[in-house]
Amino acid sequence: MDARALRLRCRSGELSGPTAGLAAGHVQANLVALPAAQAFDFWLFCHRNPRPCPVLDVTAPGEVAPPRLAPDADLRSDLPRYRILVAGEEREVEDAREAWRADLCAFLLGCSFSFEAALVRAGLPVRHIEEGRNVPMYRTARACVPAGPFAAPLVVSMRPMSPVQAERAVALTAGFPHAHGAPVAIGEPAALGIADLAAPDFGDAVTVRPGEVPVFWACGVTTLLAVRNAALSLAITHAPGHMFVADLREGG
Amino acid sequence: MDARALRLRCRSGELSGPTAGLAAGHVQANLVALPAAQAFDFWLFCHRNPRPCPVLDVTAPGEVAPPRLAPDADLRSDLPRYRILVAGEEREVEDAREAWRADLCAFLLGCSFSFEAALVRAGLPVRHIEEGRNVPMYRTARACVPAGPFAAPLVVSMRPMSPVQAERAVALTAGFPHAHGAPVAIGEPAALGIADLAAPDFGDAVTVRPGEVPVFWACGVTTLLAVRNAALSLAITHAPGHMFVADLREGG
Repeated sequence: MDARALRLRCRSGELSGPTAGLAAGHVQANLVALPAAQAFDFWLFCHRNPRPCPVLDVTAPGEVAPPRLAPDADLRSDLPRYRILVAGEEREVEDAREAWRADLCAFLLGCSFSFEAALVRAGLPVRHIEEGRNVPMYRTARACVPAGPFAAPLVVSMRPMSPVQAERAVALTAGFPHAHGAPVAIGEPAALGIADLAAPDFGDAVTVRPGEVPVFWACGVTTLLAVRNAALSLAITHAPGHMFVADLREGG
Repeated sequence: MDARALRLRCRSGELSGPTAGLAAGHVQANLVALPAAQAFDFWLFCHRNPRPCPVLDVTAPGEVAPPRLAPDADLRSDLPRYRILVAGEEREVEDAREAWRADLCAFLLGCSFSFEAALVRAGLPVRHIEEGRNVPMYRTARACVPAGPFAAPLVVSMRPMSPVQAERAVALTAGFPHAHGAPVAIGEPAALGIADLAAPDFGDAVTVRPGEVPVFWACGVTTLLAVRNAALSLAITHAPGHMFVADLREGG
């Protein structure tokens, strides 16, 4: 399935499930749409925290297609599932056309799916895929640089590997600056303020085998916490795992 | 002279001349400060036109230091010379403290001084330096992607070289994406809508020797035209050639 066909299936309501592994080779992206009045502050938050929040594309108010990623897309309908944040309440919908407002600006942010596919191709372990679970994610004690109403702790995802594999994973993911880049920490969960690897704050715990170390990457959930903390009149994001699929190809 | 000492000399009024060649090895940047209400649109303009407008750093309203480039600087006083744009009128001052407003956001944009130093180090000709002139700059027939009130033709700077030298210059400047990157065109001024190389729209004409081709790079003056066209209530930029000198080093 190509990226455009996948988006049209979302638009028609045929596809409402997660996008992991679909339209292989195409960039997938986090969506954060918020009012133009807060868009500069949010961009500044992303700019100052590029590891968790790598900006791939941005739309002006009234635009519904991200010109760099997919100039014929409609962000209001072309993701399989959305999360709508209104005045502290959150709900999920499969179509955001009713909730969308003309003053929204959309940010498309890089996603770990990009580098996970590369890890798998390189023969490196991606334990949560092996075990059929969601990636384990942890709030850290490290604060992001705030901007306007946006503030959040750095959230990290974790993939256990041998030290030799971790070294290869560092080199490989450093080549993906637009998808969180190299790990922010290896080993030593306590140094990040993580008390218990078996109790992630989001997602599922995975097996850490003897001789393996936890490898931590900055995670897009950081952005969701920042948007929640900002208590905007409206924000629309992808539902976790239900990403925007771009025409743009990895490395393209 | 180090970068901080240079900025302090600007602040005290001792230095009000051009910064070309000063504090060698330090990044120099274009300044564009404008009201927060237009800052998102301006950022979008830069994002969609990254060759002429590479964003290095951005400040929030009320901040006077660019945190990535020089966290102890004061953008209101630490450039040698400014241009103040108010309601269609332009004037130059050596100190922008009186003109500055609390709602201004400052953008620091990459500058060709970065790659010119590298061209000189590589033994490639930089004719306007050899001839002691300002670089020749031309309005092209190519329009930038507009955003909000910001629109402008692409402006290019030109450096003549032999075809072999031009090939080396392409490879070298491609390594400076934050300073306009590789040339946008080589030879064929007419293809860019440039009628006469001897009559630049800004700067000075330089000698093009037999066997040389004009090599065109995107130019930061594009940004100045976009700011002019937007007719903002206030904008403050560097005066041409009088740049912000960062703590950040080239390649750092």
